[in-house]
Amino acid sequence: MNPASPLDNVRIVLSHTSHPGNIGATARAMKTMGLNKLYLINPKSFPDSEADARASNARDILETAHVCSNLEEALGDTFLAAALTARRRDLPHPTCNARQAAIELIRHAQHHPVALLFGRESAGLTAAEISHCQVTVQIPANPDCSSLNLAAAVQVMAYELRMVLEEDAAAHYFASRLPDAASLHEIEGLHYHLERVMIHSGFMDPDQPKHLMRRIRRLFARTRLEKEEVNLLRGLLTAVDPHNSSKS
Amino acid sequence: MNPASPLDNVRIVLSHTSHPGNIGATARAMKTMGLNKLYLINPKSFPDSEADARASNARDILETAHVCSNLEEALGDTFLAAALTARRRDLPHPTCNARQAAIELIRHAQHHPVALLFGRESAGLTAAEISHCQVTVQIPANPDCSSLNLAAAVQVMAYELRMVLEEDAAAHYFASRLPDAASLHEIEGLHYHLERVMIHSGFMDPDQPKHLMRRIRRLFARTRLEKEEVNLLRGLLTAVDPHNSSKS
Repeated sequence: MNPASPLDNVRIVLSHTSHPGNIGATARAMKTMGLNKLYLINPKSFPDSEADARASNARDILETAHVCSNLEEALGDTFLAAALTARRRDLPHPTCNARQAAIELIRHAQHHPVALLFGRESAGLTAAEISHCQVTVQIPANPDCSSLNLAAAVQVMAYELRMVLEEDAAAHYFASRLPDAASLHEIEGLHYHLERVMIHSGFMDPDQPKHLMRRIRRLFARTRLEKEEVNLLRGLLTAVDPHNSSKS
Repeated sequence: MNPASPLDNVRIVLSHTSHPGNIGATARAMKTMGLNKLYLINPKSFPDSEADARASNARDILETAHVCSNLEEALGDTFLAAALTARRRDLPHPTCNARQAAIELIRHAQHHPVALLFGRESAGLTAAEISHCQVTVQIPANPDCSSLNLAAAVQVMAYELRMVLEEDAAAHYFASRLPDAASLHEIEGLHYHLERVMIHSGFMDPDQPKHLMRRIRRLFARTRLEKEEVNLLRGLLTAVDPHNSSKS
């Protein structure tokens, strides 16, 4: 897939949005910066006249929005997913700021679909949602009032994505070769296979999983696994536990 | 005047705003980035419940907003005023982009009050209003759809102002708190253990190791393994191959 612009490979994913006005304002924020792929996971109300009104000239983005019933559907074929969060976590992913994240996303978007995931207006993303992403992104903000309006956060990220393309400084960055990255689907297959082996070997009690899988996800999220590495690790898992070469 | 932060010297000036919701959203955008001085020139409706609702936790900024009847009143004591505009003008001022403008504004705000002026939702600033400013600012945007929502434009500018102050910190971002990293000795122990299990399981032929261990080393080198992660992985290796819990 060779998009006309890397921005065509960047999808904005809104999870469980409560206010349809924010969906419309998100569409407008996207269009002003040249983004056009909107994914909505279980929006409370969509389509909605309030979304149309706030979208202004960006109703076409609402009309082509993908409404999904779960996160996997929205992220499945992406190669890099970044989670927006205002809060610190006990088990943090690698966290970068909006500007750093935009550079990384555009670098990948030259070759593959990538996603930026935004959570609920009230509570942001869940830990489970974040664990499906490889990067956590924070927009630098006032520590006493760090919660941007949802569409305002989209505007800042979309602006930073556009600025990457406008900045000469970033030009040399793209010259660096990107290894053949594993897709999220392939990485999920590895996680699932590993979980099966952990249970089968007695290492993990499925009734008391503790945070084992979350730790594993965090570890692999940092590495940006390549296709060949996923194949290597799955080959090893099959070798140590031949009765459990789970297909997924 | 020696402000605690240069951001205390930056005022946001909205001229003839039609929608009170945009005034509230502007207050929220400002507060999330640490700005607090809001000036309103002849707003259509203010105070207004819609402004309060959209301000969320930033109602204090609405309560201390200065309502002015003309531009001179709003800009009078500032030392630099920048006009936001999406359009090219016949007689253009020196024009800079949002990032360049933020640097210039913060430079002055370390010593004096400065202003960022935003026009009507429908038509932007008039030529007369722009002529009162020393700088014209454009937010880089999609040429086919360049009109950001008013509060979204404030959010981008406020974000860029904050980023000027955060950039030094950002440079050291990755040097900040490092989780309890594994020692090289611990990582070598993991490599050795993994190699034993790979051989014992038949996954790797010790006489024809190919580049397997080199690939594994490269993968883990990228992750910067933590102590707990090494312990977790070695625990798993022992579980899948109990006869090979090699001490090292």
